[in-house]
Amino acid sequence: MMKKTVKIAYVGCGGRACWVLQDCLRHMKDVEFPIICDIRDRALDRATELLVEMGRPAPKRTHHYEEVLKDPEIDAVMIMTGWEDRAEMAEKALRAGKYTAIEVGCAFELSECFRLLEAYEETKVPLMMLENCCYSRREMMALNVAKKGLFGEIVHCEGGYHHHLPAEDLLRDENYDRIKGVEGEKSHYRIQSYIHRNCEQYPTHELGPIMKILGINRGNKMLTLSSFASKARGLKDAAGKILGKDNYYANIDYKQGDIINTVITCQNGETIRLCLDTTLPRPFYSRNFTVRGVDGMYTEERRVLYFDGMEEQADLFDNEEEMFAKYDHPLHEEYVRLGERGGHGGIDWLVCRAFIESVKNGTNTPIDAYDTLALMAIAPLSEASIAQGGAPVQVPDFTRGKWMHREPIVKSKYCLDEVIVDESVKIFDEDE
Amino acid sequence: MMKKTVKIAYVGCGGRACWVLQDCLRHMKDVEFPIICDIRDRALDRATELLVEMGRPAPKRTHHYEEVLKDPEIDAVMIMTGWEDRAEMAEKALRAGKYTAIEVGCAFELSECFRLLEAYEETKVPLMMLENCCYSRREMMALNVAKKGLFGEIVHCEGGYHHHLPAEDLLRDENYDRIKGVEGEKSHYRIQSYIHRNCEQYPTHELGPIMKILGINRGNKMLTLSSFASKARGLKDAAGKILGKDNYYANIDYKQGDIINTVITCQNGETIRLCLDTTLPRPFYSRNFTVRGVDGMYTEERRVLYFDGMEEQADLFDNEEEMFAKYDHPLHEEYVRLGERGGHGGIDWLVCRAFIESVKNGTNTPIDAYDTLALMAIAPLSEASIAQGGAPVQVPDFTRGKWMHREPIVKSKYCLDEVIVDESVKIFDEDE
Repeated sequence: MMKKTVKIAYVGCGGRACWVLQDCLRHMKDVEFPIICDIRDRALDRATELLVEMGRPAPKRTHHYEEVLKDPEIDAVMIMTGWEDRAEMAEKALRAGKYTAIEVGCAFELSECFRLLEAYEETKVPLMMLENCCYSRREMMALNVAKKGLFGEIVHCEGGYHHHLPAEDLLRDENYDRIKGVEGEKSHYRIQSYIHRNCEQYPTHELGPIMKILGINRGNKMLTLSSFASKARGLKDAAGKILGKDNYYANIDYKQGDIINTVITCQNGETIRLCLDTTLPRPFYSRNFTVRGVDGMYTEERRVLYFDGMEEQADLFDNEEEMFAKYDHPLHEEYVRLGERGGHGGIDWLVCRAFIESVKNGTNTPIDAYDTLALMAIAPLSEASIAQGGAPVQVPDFTRGKWMHREPIVKSKYCLDEVIVDESVKIFDEDE
Repeated sequence: MMKKTVKIAYVGCGGRACWVLQDCLRHMKDVEFPIICDIRDRALDRATELLVEMGRPAPKRTHHYEEVLKDPEIDAVMIMTGWEDRAEMAEKALRAGKYTAIEVGCAFELSECFRLLEAYEETKVPLMMLENCCYSRREMMALNVAKKGLFGEIVHCEGGYHHHLPAEDLLRDENYDRIKGVEGEKSHYRIQSYIHRNCEQYPTHELGPIMKILGINRGNKMLTLSSFASKARGLKDAAGKILGKDNYYANIDYKQGDIINTVITCQNGETIRLCLDTTLPRPFYSRNFTVRGVDGMYTEERRVLYFDGMEEQADLFDNEEEMFAKYDHPLHEEYVRLGERGGHGGIDWLVCRAFIESVKNGTNTPIDAYDTLALMAIAPLSEASIAQGGAPVQVPDFTRGKWMHREPIVKSKYCLDEVIVDESVKIFDEDE
C-alpha cells in the first residue's frame, strides 16, 4: 500500500547533511521531517533554519538518537553522521523497524558489517547506502548500455576517487581546535583517518555503480580483494606548503599511502580495479569510471563511449554529448528534461528520491542491505590486504549464497539492476 | 678508445627486424652489417635487398647463429628473433665477447634470466634490451622533469600496453599454415602465447621508462609483484566476428585474460601499476604513461603535464605541445630539430643509436644487463602470481645488492639515469 507522505527522522545535521536535506526539500512535498537529531546545537539550528526557510514546520530537535527511534510516526531514518557511528545507528534503526538510509562510507572493522547483517536478517527492514554516484548521468548511461547488452560480455571495470583535497582538508582541520574542539564543527574524518590508517577508505563512488553493472549480489559476487599502498608523502608535503614547515600537520608521518590500488576478482571472472588518490596534485577530479566489454567500452578519463566497429581515433577526447543523446538512461532523460525547469541537487536528489520512493511504496531499496554491506566491507578488507603485503583476502558473501538466484528487487524506474521504464510514475510529485 | 666504425651481426630478419634495420641504415655511416642471420632464406633475401638498396655492400648470410659469433671482426650482435630463442642466443653472444642487444620481450621462465645473469657476471660484456619507448618523446619529457626534481618526490607510476590487436593478430595467424608453416612468415607469437599462457606478457614499453624514472637498480629496486587476470573473452569473440563462428580461432578457449593488472611495490615505497590490454575494442592506442609526485604529474591518457599550483581544470585535455616546448629532454630537443631535415625512425632509431654509441665508445649501455633482466623477468613472475590467485611474488634482485650503490654508468646524452647534456657529441655522424 502506498503511503501518501513519508515521515523521516534526519540524523546528523553537519554541512554535507544540510546540503542533502536541502535537496530533499525540493520537489518532494510528500516528504516530512518531523524530527532532527545532532549532538551539536549549532548543527540543529542550521537544519531548523533550512526547513523553515523552505516553508516547512520547525521540527522537533533532539541530542539523543534513541528518541527518534521511539516515535511510532517515523517511517524512515536517514543517518548522515560521521563514519564512526553509522553502523551501530543503522543496526538500531533496523531493529526499531525503520527504513534506514546511511551516507556513503565504509566500516572500520568487518564485524560491524556482520552485526548489521544479523539485524537485517532478523528484521528484513530495508537498508540503503545513499551511493549518489549510482545515479550519476555517466554511470547510468553506462548502466543502460550494459543492461541492453551493448558492451557485449563485460570482462573488466575500473574506477577511482581522484580528487586533490589537501588544501580543503588541511585548512578545515587547522581551524578545528584539537584540544577543545569547536562546537558545530569537527575535524575532518579524512585527516584523522589518514593519520592513523592505510587502506582504500573511500571506494563507494566508483564501486557502487560497478557492482550494479557486474550484477554483484545478483548472479555474481566479489571473491578476493588485494590492495597496495604507495608511500605517504602528499599530505605532509602539502601541509608544509600550505601551513608552513613548523605546523603540526607538516610534522606527522601519515600512515595513509598517497595512491591505493585495489584489485577485486569476481565469481564470474571479471576483475575490478579501484584507486584512491586524494593527496597528490592533479588538475581535474575524476572517478575514472571504466567499463570494458567484448563489444565496447566506456572511459570517463577520456569521456568516451566506444563500440567495436566505430573508427579508431588516437585523438578522440570527449564524445559524451553525442552519446548522452543516444544512450542516456531513461531516468536521466526524464530528469534532464524536467531539470531544465529549475535547480535541484542532481545525484543527491535522485538517490534520496530512490530511497523515499521505496519507503512510500513499501518495497526494498535499489541499493539494498547486501549491496550496502559489500560496500562497507571494502576498507577493512583493504587494510588487511595492505598489512599483509598485498595478499588477496576473501570478500565475504553477505547474501550467504542467495546471490545465485536473486532477482532485481525494485521494479521501479530507480532500479539499478535492470532498466525499467514506467511511464505511470512521475519522478516529481509536484508540478512546480 | 673510440671505434671509428662498428661491425654488427644482425640476427633475425623478419618484418619488425627489417623495419629496425632500415632505421639503422639512416644517418649511421659508422655502422656496418657484414653478416646477417636467419633460418629463412626469404627473410635473408629481404634484409639483403634492404642493405643493397640503401647503398651498403651485400652481407654474408648464414642460417647458423654460431657462425656469426665466431667472426672476430664482429663487435656486436643485435638479436631480433622471436621470443623463444633470445635468452639463449644472448647468453652465447655474451660468452663470445660481443656487445649484445635484444629486441623487447620477456623470458618464459625465470631460470632463463639467471643463466643470462651468470653469463653477464662472468664476462661483464654489455647486454641491452632495445626498449624503444625509453626514448619516446613523452617518456623522455617526463624523465627530464623527474631528474630535474620538478615532480618532487615521486610516489607512484603507471603504464600499460593498451592496443586493440585482434584483427591484426588473427588475420596474420589465419594466413599462416599451422600444419606446414609458410617459409618466410610465422604465426604471430601473441596468438600462440595467448592460447597457452595467462600473464603480463608485454610490460617493457611502459616498465622500461618507469624503471628509469624510479631509479630501479640504482638506489631502488622492485620488491614484490602481484598480477590479476580478467576472464578471456576478447580474442574468441573477435575471431567469431572476423573469421566466422566455425573458424579454428573462434573455438579456442584462450588462457590469456583480456585485462591483466599488475602492481609492483618498490624498495623505496613507490608503487607501479602495469596493464596489458590488447584483445578488447578500444578507440586509441595508449601506454597510459603516468607519473605522480608531490609537486606534479604527467598523464598520457589526457596528455597532460601538470604542476602543483597551476589552475585546476576539469576539461584539461592535451597540453603537450606547450609542455614539450618547456620540458623536452635535451636529446629530443636536438632530435626534433635535426629530424625536420628528413625522416628517420624515431624511437627505434634513438634506441639503436644508444646501443651503437656504447659499442663505439666501449662503455656500458644505458639500459644495461640488470635492467634487461628485470624487464625479462616480469612475465614469469606475473604468471606465477596469477596462478596463485594474485599472491605477491618476490622480484629477484639481479644486481645481488649492488643496486644500493650503483651510479649512472653511461655518461652520455643517451643516459637514462640522469640528464646529461654534452654539446661535443652530435647525435648524427653525418651531415646529410
